[in-house]
Amino acid sequence: MTGQNTYVKTEIVGTSDVSISEAINNAIGTAARSLRNLEWFEVIELRGSIRDNKAASYQVTLKLGLRYDAGA
Amino acid sequence: MTGQNTYVKTEIVGTSDVSISEAINNAIGTAARSLRNLEWFEVIELRGSIRDNKAASYQVTLKLGLRYDAGA
Amino acid sequence: MTGQNTYVKTEIVGTSDVSISEAINNAIGTAARSLRNLEWFEVIELRGSIRDNKAASYQVTLKLGLRYDAGA
Amino acid sequence: MTGQNTYVKTEIVGTSDVSISEAINNAIGTAARSLRNLEWFEVIELRGSIRDNKAASYQVTLKLGLRYDAGA
Amino acid sequence: MTGQNTYVKTEIVGTSDVSISEAINNAIGTAARSLRNLEWFEVIELRGSIRDNKAASYQVTLKLGLRYDAGA
Amino acid sequence: MTGQNTYVKTEIVGTSDVSISEAINNAIGTAARSLRNLEWFEVIELRGSIRDNKAASYQVTLKLGLRYDAGA
Amino acid sequence: MTGQNTYVKTEIVGTSDVSISEAINNAIGTAARSLRNLEWFEVIELRGSIRDNKAASYQVTLKLGLRYDAGA
Amino acid sequence: MTGQNTYVKTEIVGTSDVSISEAINNAIGTAARSLRNLEWFEVIELRGSIRDNKAASYQVTLKLGLRYDAGA
Amino acid sequence: MTGQNTYVKTEIVGTSDVSISEAINNAIGTAARSLRNLEWFEVIELRGSIRDNKAASYQVTLKLGLRYDAGA
Amino acid sequence: MTGQNTYVKTEIVGTSDVSISEAINNAIGTAARSLRNLEWFEVIELRGSIRDNKAASYQVTLKLGLRYDAGA
Amino acid sequence: MTGQNTYVKTEIVGTSDVSISEAINNAIGTAARSLRNLEWFEVIELRGSIRDNKAASYQVTLKLGLRYDAGA
Amino acid sequence: MTGQNTYVKTEIVGTSDVSISEAINNAIGTAARSLRNLEWFEVIELRGSIRDNKAASYQVTLKLGLRYDAGA
Repeated sequence: MTGQNTYVKTEIVGTSDVSISEAINNAIGTAARSLRNLEWFEVIELRGSIRDNKAASYQVTLKLGLRYDAGA
Repeated sequence: MTGQNTYVKTEIVGTSDVSISEAINNAIGTAARSLRNLEWFEVIELRGSIRDNKAASYQVTLKLGLRYDAGA
Repeated sequence: MTGQNTYVKTEIVGTSDVSISEAINNAIGTAARSLRNLEWFEVIELRGSIRDNKAASYQVTLKLGLRYDAGA
Repeated sequence: MTGQNTYVKTEIVGTSDVSISEAINNAIGTAARSLRNLEWFEVIELRGSIRDNKAASYQVTLKLGLRYDAGA
Repeated sequence: MTGQNTYVKTEIVGTSDVSISEAINNAIGTAARSLRNLEWFEVIELRGSIRDNKAASYQVTLKLGLRYDAGA
Repeated sequence: MTGQNTYVKTEIVGTSDVSISEAINNAIGTAARSLRNLEWFEVIELRGSIRDNKAASYQVTLKLGLRYDAGA
Repeated sequence: MTGQNTYVKTEIVGTSDVSISEAINNAIGTAARSLRNLEWFEVIELRGSIRDNKAASYQVTLKLGLRYDAGA
Repeated sequence: MTGQNTYVKTEIVGTSDVSISEAINNAIGTAARSLRNLEWFEVIELRGSIRDNKAASYQVTLKLGLRYDAGA
Repeated sequence: MTGQNTYVKTEIVGTSDVSISEAINNAIGTAARSLRNLEWFEVIELRGSIRDNKAASYQVTLKLGLRYDAGA
Repeated sequence: MTGQNTYVKTEIVGTSDVSISEAINNAIGTAARSLRNLEWFEVIELRGSIRDNKAASYQVTLKLGLRYDAGA
Repeated sequence: MTGQNTYVKTEIVGTSDVSISEAINNAIGTAARSLRNLEWFEVIELRGSIRDNKAASYQVTLKLGLRYDAGA
Repeated sequence: MTGQNTYVKTEIVGTSDVSISEAINNAIGTAARSLRNLEWFEVIELRGSIRDNKAASYQVTLKLGLRYDAGA
C-alpha cells in the first residue's frame, strides 16, 4: 500500500474438492470476474465437509483486498 | 456448500421495534431486494436502543452468505 | 439507528502519509464517490509503513455503516 | 451520540424464566431504579440454567450505555 | 457449583424452524437422552438458513454443563 | 442465579506481593467495603511487576458479580 | 501499581468533534467530576459519526483505572 | 443442517509427518472408528514440531460436527 | 505429540475450596475415572464463588488432551 | 512482501507525552538503533497515564515487521 | 512507564513441576541471564502436562516487559 | 516440554510462491541460521499476494518455540 490509495476488503468463501490452495484460487478467480485490482488475501476461516470419513471439500473464507480504482 | 461453488459474505444490520427474529428477517428481506441466492446468516452482534427504560429497538448485525451466481 | 431501517457495513482501508485522521477521512471520502448515506465508522485495525525509521504512512481499516436507501 | 457528550457503560446481568427479551428488559428496568439516561444496550453473553431437561432461565449479560448527566 | 464437584462441558448444535428458544430446547432435549445431570447452557454461536428470503431455520451452538456423576 | 434477580458486574484489580490468591482476596475484601451481596468472581487478566529478577507483585484483574439488592 | 493497592476499572465513552485525543481528554475530564485518583486509561474501541462525507465526531471507548481510596 | 436435527461438536487433534491435509484426514479417520455420522470439520489451530530445522509433523486441531443419531 | 497419533480434547470444570492447583487436580482426577491416556491440560477460564467476602471456591475450566488409544 | 523473503515481528512499546503519532515514532526510532530493515508497524494496544485529570502520556504497543537480512 | 521511554515485550514459557508461581519465576530468572531491566510480566497462557493422573508440570507463557536501555 | 526448561517464542513471517508448507519451512530455515534449539511452530496468520487473479505468494506468520540453552 502506498501513497493515498484506498482499498476495499470483501469477504468470500472458496471451495474445492481437491486442496486448500485450490479453494483459495477458486475464490480469487470467481471474484475476479466482477472485481478489478485484487491485491491480497487473508485467510479467515478453514472448514470443510466430510464424506465417507474423509475430507470431501475444503471451504476457505477469505478477505480479499482490492485497490479502489479512481476511474471506477 | 457443495462442489466448486463460491460464496460471498456481506455484513448487514437489521432493526426492529418488536423482536430479535423480526430484526433478522428485516435485514434478510431488505438485502434480498438487491442480492440473489441468499443461503445463510450468522449473527455477529446484538444490541438495541432504550426508551422509557425498556428495549425500544433491536439491532442485529448479521453476515449473510450468498451463492455467487455464475450468470451474474 | 431508528425505526425499521436496515444498514450495510463495508470494510475499507484508508491511507495517509500525514495522520490517522486524514487516513480515516480519505477512506470515507473515497467510499462516498460510490456509496450514499454513510452514517458511521468503526476502526478495526491501525498499521502503517516505515521509511527512514519513521512512520511513512498510516493504513486504517474501517467498517463504514450506511443506511440502506429504499430507492436504491 | 452527539456533540461533546460523555457516556458510561455498565455491565449487568438480567434473568428471566420466560424469554431472552424479558431478561433484557428486567436488566434495564432494574438498572433504571438507580441510573438515569439509559440510551442503549449491547448483549455480551447469553446463558441459562437447565431444569427437567429444558431451559429454566435465561441469563443475559448486557452493557448498558448511559449519557453522563451534567448535573449529576 | 459447590463443594468439590466436577463438571463436563459438551458442545452441541440445536436447530429449529420456529425460534431461537426452541432450538436451545431441542439441543437440551436431545442431549438429555444420553447425558444426565445437565445444569446450564452457554450460547456460543447463532446462525441459520435462509429460504424464500426469510430465516428458515435457527442453528444455535451451545455448550452444555453437566455435573459429573460419582456413580457414572 | 435464580428467579428474576439482576446482577451487576464490576471490574477491579487486586494486588499482592505474596500470591495470586491473596491478590484475588484483596480485591474482594476491598470491594466489600462499599459493595454488598458479592457472589462470584471471574479472572480477566493476570500480570505483575518484576524486581530483582523475581515476580515482586501479582496484579489480578477480576470481574465481580453482585446481586442487585432490591432495597439498595 | 504498588503495594497492596486495589484499583477499579470503569468503562466510559468520550466524544469530540475535533480529534481522538480530545475525545480521550473529554472522557477523563468528565469522569474526574465524580471519580478521584484516576491513574491510567486503556482505549477499547474507536468509532465515530459521518456527516458530509467526513468524520464528524470521534467516539472513544476507554477503560479508566483508578486507585481505590481507603478513605472513600 | 436441516429440519429439527441436533449436532454434536467434538474437538480432536490429527497429526501427520507429511501434510496438513493428511493430518485432517487422520483425525477424521480415527474419529470415525468410534463416532458415526460425521458431517463437517472446522480447523481451530495449526501447529507442528520441528526437527533438523524443518517442519517434522503437522498437528491440526479440528472441531468435528456429527449428526446426533436418533437410534444412538 | 509424535508419529501419526490422534488426540481428543475434552472440556471439564474442576472445583476446589482450597486452591487453583487443587481445582486442576480434582478435574484431572475425576476425568481419569472414565478416560485413559490423559497427556496435557490447558486452562481456559478461572472463576470462583464468594462467601463472607472471600474466595470460597475456585472453578477452573480446562481442556484435557488425551491420546486416542488404538485399542479403544 | 515479495519473493522468498522472511520477516521478523518484534513487540515494542513507545511512549510520548505529546501524541499517539509521536509515541509510534519514538518506538520506531528507538528500535532502529539496534534493528535494521524495519518495514511496517501494527498497533496492538493504546493506553496511557493520567495526571491532573488529563492524558499525561500515550503508550502505544506496536508490532514492528523487519526484513530478515541475508547477511545478518 | 514514564517520560519518553521505550519498552520491549518478549514472549517466554516458564515451566515448573511445583507451582504456577515457580514457573513464572523460572521464566523471569532464565530471561534475566541475557536481558536487563525487566519491569513487568503478563500471563498469556497456562497449561501443563499430566502424569499419573495429576498435573506433572505447569507451563506458563508470559510476555516480559523490559525498558530499552539507552546504552544498550 | 519437560523438567524446569524455559522456552522462548519468536514471531516470524515466512513466504513462498509455491505452497503454505514451503512458506513454513522457509521461515524455520531462515530462523535456524541465527537461532538454535527450535522445537515447535504455531501458525498465527495466513495471507498472501494476488497476481493475475491467482495466489502469487503465501505469507505465513508463525510463532517459533525454542528451548533456552543453558550455555547460551
